[in-house]
Amino acid sequence: MKSNTRSVLFDTDIGIDDAMALLFLHYAPEIQLLGITTRFGNASVEDTTRNALNVVEHFKLKVPVFRGAARPLAARLGEGFPAHVHGNNGLGDVDLGEPSLKYETMNAAQAIVDNSALCREQGKRLSIVAVGGLTNIAHALALDGLIIKDIEEVIVMGGAFGYNGHRGNVSPVAEANIASDPLAADIVFSSDLTTTIVGLDVTHEVTVDEAFLELLVKQAGEAGQFIRDIMRFYLEFYFGINQRRECPLHDSCAVAYLLQPDLFSTIKNPVRVVTEGIAIGQTIHSDDIRRFVSKEWENIPNSNVCIGVDADAVLKLYQATLARAGSSCS
Amino acid sequence: MKSNTRSVLFDTDIGIDDAMALLFLHYAPEIQLLGITTRFGNASVEDTTRNALNVVEHFKLKVPVFRGAARPLAARLGEGFPAHVHGNNGLGDVDLGEPSLKYETMNAAQAIVDNSALCREQGKRLSIVAVGGLTNIAHALALDGLIIKDIEEVIVMGGAFGYNGHRGNVSPVAEANIASDPLAADIVFSSDLTTTIVGLDVTHEVTVDEAFLELLVKQAGEAGQFIRDIMRFYLEFYFGINQRRECPLHDSCAVAYLLQPDLFSTIKNPVRVVTEGIAIGQTIHSDDIRRFVSKEWENIPNSNVCIGVDADAVLKLYQATLARAGSSCS
Repeated sequence: MKSNTRSVLFDTDIGIDDAMALLFLHYAPEIQLLGITTRFGNASVEDTTRNALNVVEHFKLKVPVFRGAARPLAARLGEGFPAHVHGNNGLGDVDLGEPSLKYETMNAAQAIVDNSALCREQGKRLSIVAVGGLTNIAHALALDGLIIKDIEEVIVMGGAFGYNGHRGNVSPVAEANIASDPLAADIVFSSDLTTTIVGLDVTHEVTVDEAFLELLVKQAGEAGQFIRDIMRFYLEFYFGINQRRECPLHDSCAVAYLLQPDLFSTIKNPVRVVTEGIAIGQTIHSDDIRRFVSKEWENIPNSNVCIGVDADAVLKLYQATLARAGSSCS
Repeated sequence: MKSNTRSVLFDTDIGIDDAMALLFLHYAPEIQLLGITTRFGNASVEDTTRNALNVVEHFKLKVPVFRGAARPLAARLGEGFPAHVHGNNGLGDVDLGEPSLKYETMNAAQAIVDNSALCREQGKRLSIVAVGGLTNIAHALALDGLIIKDIEEVIVMGGAFGYNGHRGNVSPVAEANIASDPLAADIVFSSDLTTTIVGLDVTHEVTVDEAFLELLVKQAGEAGQFIRDIMRFYLEFYFGINQRRECPLHDSCAVAYLLQPDLFSTIKNPVRVVTEGIAIGQTIHSDDIRRFVSKEWENIPNSNVCIGVDADAVLKLYQATLARAGSSCS
């Protein structure tokens, strides 16, 4: 085990940009990745779990994979899975074959509980990087609410608050991860967990293009090649939206926040999530000054909401970290 | 009747800033004010109707007052009336006594229908300046949907879209007028009416202070004095929010748009209103570029949404128009 490291669980619905974030975590020297918990989202939980196992096996990550939720706690926006964004298999239709590794018998929510306890026993606290919806964490809170004191922080890629002109991507106000399980997100943000929300407000500011991927191929060896391969599909999707061959580095922004939070500017406010109606999945923060007729945000602990980012620095941090793959010092 | 004029109905829940807007309309030379339709909102419909009659009588407006809705179509945010904003009587507790004028036997919704027909018969089209919630207009559409072709435009003071950093004032995302009848607003914005939304995005940019009111007293005679008197309460309320003795000229911004729309910058997008849950009353516009999982904004006609304003020019227009009261050329 690495010394002076952060103990991290990666909760994910892998996913093209999720796979990029997983490799980012893996090659970051200060991270001890304890496990991967999966859920439905970018693809079915069967597909995302297979994708997790594939990446683990392919890049020899030596971390257990815990399969999680197949569906949300309650209503979500839309149905099915976004094959037009992440391909039919969730990895841009790059086929790594059937993995020989298997997922653990323990499920994702229990793995969150058990790893929290494990960290406590070691005098540490667990950090969770959650880049899908928050179903597994909501399940874990239901299993054992006392885990809150053993969890250092939960860094969530999700949501959109309208900063920097960035609103929703699955409705005018809702972001895909949160919209995949609005109630779970509302439970997590309303809990006493220390939560940082890395939403579209900042992830849409951090975009990668072909030049970025070419540099990655040059510096990060096989990992770079893999990322360029899976990103081909993703770039096509974003080209269809804005006619530019570039796309946001969504999930890796959450990892960047874990590694260097000072690359982000944040506000602290109570956050709730809309769980029904046309705004379902919208993240809404309250206001520091104004008192409202609505009491819905009262007695809700603050979340950290990222509202600004040093995008160049995040991209450089990603390149520098992945370059460790090329130099075989993982 | 004035020649070359715009035929206007003023739909209102008078209200301090509503009274300012009514005098703005009255003294604008290019406006033929056909009537005032009232509703609940800043106070009960009994109080707002009495306030309308009081202002009409006090300033000899010679327009009929049609009493309208006492309650919303469906759920609203909160309950009761905002006496802390507009005083117990809705006019900052300035007591003009019981008016000798009476409201018409025809109700507000029918008055909208009949005035639309009247305009058509005269080869004109009706404009509505709506500075409360949209219950009366929704009722009118239910009485006769064909009025849409006789209505030039509906200019609504209401809503908040997050532009210029301005979000809600009764919840983090909801504005008071729209939140007083979310379903009515959703019906109006989803209809084929030509609608312009003058929301907090711009009204919070147009603020008046003591100096503005002093100038009004000097130039607008009794009207200026009346406005300073009723504004005392309103200024106190806003001072409590932001420790500045200034307040937004909400409703008069809708009149300013009617008179000089080029003082505002707008976007055209489908607008919906959230009718339930924690975001109840929020106005949400769709996006020009992105296609969403959510289909809720599809097949909704565009509204004009004000996103910018020349605040100084609006304030000058108000002063110049009210100065006509002082020079007795109404």
